[in-house]
Amino acid sequence: MTLDSATPRNSGRPRVVIVGGGFAGLEAAKALARLPVDVLLIDRSNHHLFQPLLYQVATSALSPGEIAHPVRASLRRHPNVDVHLGEITRIDPETRTAHLAEGEPVRYDYLLLAPGARHSYFGRPEWEALAPGLKSLEDALEIRRRVLTAFELAERTADQRARSRLLTFVVIGAGPTGVELAGALAEMRDYALRRDFRHIDPASARVVLIEAGNRILPTYPASLSRCARQTLSRLGVEVRTGVRVTGLEPGAVITPEGLIGSNTVLWAAGNMASPLLAWLGVPLDRAGRAIVEPDCSIPGHPEVFVLGDAAAYTHHPGLPLVPGVAPAANQMGRHAAAVIAADLRGKPRPAFRYFDKGQLAVIGRGQAVASVGPLRLTGFTAWLTWALVHVLYLVGFANRAVVLFRWAWSYFTFERGSRLITREWRPQISVPAE
Amino acid sequence: MTLDSATPRNSGRPRVVIVGGGFAGLEAAKALARLPVDVLLIDRSNHHLFQPLLYQVATSALSPGEIAHPVRASLRRHPNVDVHLGEITRIDPETRTAHLAEGEPVRYDYLLLAPGARHSYFGRPEWEALAPGLKSLEDALEIRRRVLTAFELAERTADQRARSRLLTFVVIGAGPTGVELAGALAEMRDYALRRDFRHIDPASARVVLIEAGNRILPTYPASLSRCARQTLSRLGVEVRTGVRVTGLEPGAVITPEGLIGSNTVLWAAGNMASPLLAWLGVPLDRAGRAIVEPDCSIPGHPEVFVLGDAAAYTHHPGLPLVPGVAPAANQMGRHAAAVIAADLRGKPRPAFRYFDKGQLAVIGRGQAVASVGPLRLTGFTAWLTWALVHVLYLVGFANRAVVLFRWAWSYFTFERGSRLITREWRPQISVPAE
Repeated sequence: MTLDSATPRNSGRPRVVIVGGGFAGLEAAKALARLPVDVLLIDRSNHHLFQPLLYQVATSALSPGEIAHPVRASLRRHPNVDVHLGEITRIDPETRTAHLAEGEPVRYDYLLLAPGARHSYFGRPEWEALAPGLKSLEDALEIRRRVLTAFELAERTADQRARSRLLTFVVIGAGPTGVELAGALAEMRDYALRRDFRHIDPASARVVLIEAGNRILPTYPASLSRCARQTLSRLGVEVRTGVRVTGLEPGAVITPEGLIGSNTVLWAAGNMASPLLAWLGVPLDRAGRAIVEPDCSIPGHPEVFVLGDAAAYTHHPGLPLVPGVAPAANQMGRHAAAVIAADLRGKPRPAFRYFDKGQLAVIGRGQAVASVGPLRLTGFTAWLTWALVHVLYLVGFANRAVVLFRWAWSYFTFERGSRLITREWRPQISVPAE
Repeated sequence: MTLDSATPRNSGRPRVVIVGGGFAGLEAAKALARLPVDVLLIDRSNHHLFQPLLYQVATSALSPGEIAHPVRASLRRHPNVDVHLGEITRIDPETRTAHLAEGEPVRYDYLLLAPGARHSYFGRPEWEALAPGLKSLEDALEIRRRVLTAFELAERTADQRARSRLLTFVVIGAGPTGVELAGALAEMRDYALRRDFRHIDPASARVVLIEAGNRILPTYPASLSRCARQTLSRLGVEVRTGVRVTGLEPGAVITPEGLIGSNTVLWAAGNMASPLLAWLGVPLDRAGRAIVEPDCSIPGHPEVFVLGDAAAYTHHPGLPLVPGVAPAANQMGRHAAAVIAADLRGKPRPAFRYFDKGQLAVIGRGQAVASVGPLRLTGFTAWLTWALVHVLYLVGFANRAVVLFRWAWSYFTFERGSRLITREWRPQISVPAE
């Protein structure tokens, strides 16, 4: 069978190819749908993922289907937008061609690259198997599987040392993802699992949050970092700042302060943009992001844009980069469409202006920190803001309602609705000889 | 690490080991919790699965977490019930020992075997890869993946023959599972996917239901079989009875009437009880079920019970077997507990009496057939009964509410909330040489 992903429309209109159906790609596709262009969005998964709630899937509060929505369904109202399930493996900016793992290469007039990022293990890729990170639904299910299986195995062993390793959970990296994971693990231990075991006391499990920098949530105002740290400590998370992980081994995290015995180590310490960007032949920063022009295109190729957390964008040299968060990705997606609209009308290209809506990190039940302009919110007010914002931005009305219900349910009952270990244990049953 | 699954309580009370946390096992554990016994329930997954709704996960209507509930959470109120995640590989009835894949063997005074069934391919195990069946959450996600990916690939190919194979879905076996799958596939094609593609018309997809017997739903009254067949035809399912599948090849189903080109073949044609039963050394029927005594124990071993769809039980020789459905499993689970209670009090063992609550199969939106005693229900009344009964029996209040909401949502919007292809495509990105 041949796959003809390039099925040309021969409409004579410019062809815009978008790589990635995340926040930037989806928003760009919607904005481009109003222009006289043909759009082809290519993603290797069939769904848009609401990454900000991924930690809740990892910690059994939500199901995968509740934070994901088919890209196709989101774009169905736009007849000039095509969606293809496929994997881009190579880009040739000189011939304006994108190559797929299967099927014919795709030609473009404009290319919008929003391939996202994966974890970075700082040159130690072998650590990934020991400490999975959290970017995709598969990652979240893998973390859920490891955490729940650790409690199950602890229940079944009488060996005190093994049990203590099984009941120690280490999160490396204290940005928003690390803080949210650590807080959610502590709550799961103290509430949902509390009465479910006979031979272990889940409340005796340790949750350790390690940060190489000197404070948690380093991009937040210092007062919120302090508040978040206090809240985490009150939830029973051991927070260790200024500690650099120097080694990972099966069952152990090695730091200059000593070894932490743990069977379940999670990674939230660094990102690396998609390796696809290397094909552009333009300068990348240390995190593999393409250093883009004021209009989000790349130097020398005004027809190629890099968007979302794959882009290193700054308003002025020396100022901090636009952060790799969902609102920035949405804005970049809309901006790329606006630039193409300007091109089509023969107008000058506008420069991208990032509108900072603020930062929000949830720590636990009714506990969050938020920084919105000059405002600093903490505690329940911040948490309510967080819940509101996240439900509003979640795609698909049915998902919004289900997530709201699950949260209300968990809030009042302390339960977690999705405590499933999904991948089956392989059967090892032998049959007696006749 | 050693796993001590046998952690003895030394309570001096009889030890009851239950294998399987399905309907029979879970119900038995709850009933035994009231007796002076120590119960250990062993399952290789950590959740009880509400199998009657599994086809809705396979056809993207529900998420896995919505029809599963942690076994541990269901039994948390019962301090004399232990739950272990583990895989039983061998049983020795003479020494009253059950062996696990990992950890120490478990001794028992009573053994309740409720390991369930898998599909049977009538001596053609190689067919499983070509035509997956529907028993576990993994099965459901595999079917979902195949169905959704077929539409995606059809959208990307211009080869008419390949496209027609991709858009032909064959369900083999027209018991309740086959009928429910075929009906749900036809509805997904006609509603949820209708406007989502640009190069194919999902409505042109074929759904073919093949049954070797001379009518669909063979265990139902003939009038309901006829009604179900009419409803399926109206939904656009091609129903072919009296057709035996003689071969399966990649991309094709072979029958005496000819070859059906199809890339997506689903199996709902037969069951085989767990191979674990072979260790009991008692007669098994053709479907691998243990032929049990009137009290559900096995011949020669009054301390061993076989329950649920692993048991071949009949009230009188020659009468039909008690069907392998959830209500029968629940009743058998409670019965085994009642027999043990009688033993403990030195009373004679009661015989099992199956109370037939009737049969219900859903065909589509507001379409079902039901046979309850002398009553025959069809259409919307049957569907409402079906929805009510299934939501009532679903474990976990939060799940009930979410499922009800998803159904109401789908009913009014024609949407399916869980159209996710989960297992990721493996990245195949190469990086250009420096």
